[in-house]
Amino acid sequence: MNIQDFIRDIPDFPKPGILFKDITPLLGNYEALTSCASKLANLSPRDIKVDKVIGVESRGFIIGGMIAERLEAGFIPVRKKGKLPYEVKSKTYDLEYGDDTVEIHIDAIKPGEHVLIHDDVLATGGTAKAVCDLVEELGGIVVQCNFIMTLDFLNGSDKLKYPVASLLSY
Amino acid sequence: MNIQDFIRDIPDFPKPGILFKDITPLLGNYEALTSCASKLANLSPRDIKVDKVIGVESRGFIIGGMIAERLEAGFIPVRKKGKLPYEVKSKTYDLEYGDDTVEIHIDAIKPGEHVLIHDDVLATGGTAKAVCDLVEELGGIVVQCNFIMTLDFLNGSDKLKYPVASLLSY
Repeated sequence: MNIQDFIRDIPDFPKPGILFKDITPLLGNYEALTSCASKLANLSPRDIKVDKVIGVESRGFIIGGMIAERLEAGFIPVRKKGKLPYEVKSKTYDLEYGDDTVEIHIDAIKPGEHVLIHDDVLATGGTAKAVCDLVEELGGIVVQCNFIMTLDFLNGSDKLKYPVASLLSY
Repeated sequence: MNIQDFIRDIPDFPKPGILFKDITPLLGNYEALTSCASKLANLSPRDIKVDKVIGVESRGFIIGGMIAERLEAGFIPVRKKGKLPYEVKSKTYDLEYGDDTVEIHIDAIKPGEHVLIHDDVLATGGTAKAVCDLVEELGGIVVQCNFIMTLDFLNGSDKLKYPVASLLSY
C-alpha cells in the first residue's frame, strides 16, 4: 500500500501557481485510509504515553481522530476563530497576506499532559507553531508534530522546536 | 459508559437564546470517543455493505472517519463552498437568515454505491437534506443519516426521506 499513489495534484488551487496536494482519494479508499492512520500512529514516540491528540481544523480532524483511537488518547479539535463554543485561548499568526487565528478550549489539556499535534500538511509551519504555543500556554507538553506530508521547500519544520514526523515529503 | 454525560450545554452559542450541545468533552475522553463511534457504527444497516461514509464539515469529520474504519468503508468529506480542490457538485439550501452551500467531489461516489451520512447533530435538517441530494445526483444510494444527537423539537427528520439513526435526542 503506497500512500503516495492516493495523493492527487491539483494545479492552481487555492490560487494560481499553487500545486495543491489533494488527500481525498486517500480518504475515499478504506485500505489506504486505515494504512495511513496506522503508519502515522506508529511514528508516535514509543516511550511516552500520549494523552491527547490535537487535530487541526478541518482536514486534520479525520485522521487525527483515528490516530487518537490507536494511541488510546482523547481527541482535541483546534479550530478557526469563533467556532468553539466554550472559553478559549486564541493565537493569531501571520500569513503571506494578512493573518489567521486558531483557538483551543481552555479545559482541553491538563498541565503536564503529553500532546501529539496532527494535521494533513506541514507547509510554512505558521499554523503548527501557533498550535504548539496554545498547548504550551495550557501547560501541556508537545511530544510530536505529525503530518501526512511535508512541503520541504517551505522549511516549515524550522519554525517548530518539537520533533516532526511525516509519511511523505515533497 | 453514558455518552450523554459527556455532552456539555453552552448557553447563547452561537447566538443569544440558543443552547448549544458541546461534544468536545466526549471527544476528549478516549473511552467515550471510542464507545460513541462503535455505537454509531452498530446502528448502521446490518444487511447492506456500506461503501462510503460521508462526514459533514467539520464536526462530522471526526467520528465520521472512525465509523468509516469500523464499516471498512472509504471516507468522503462534504465541505463548505470553495474548500474542495477538485471539480464539485454544489447544493445551496435556506437557513433561518440567508443560505449556505455544501459541496462534494464529483468522483467521490460511484453510481450504485451505498452511502452512510454522518454529522454530529440533526437540527433543522437543511444540511443533511442537501447532502442527501448531492449523493443522489452522483448516483449513490443513501442508506442512513447517522447523528450523535437529534434536536427533536426542530423536526429535522421530516425533511429526510431516508432512515435516521442517533444515540441521543433532546
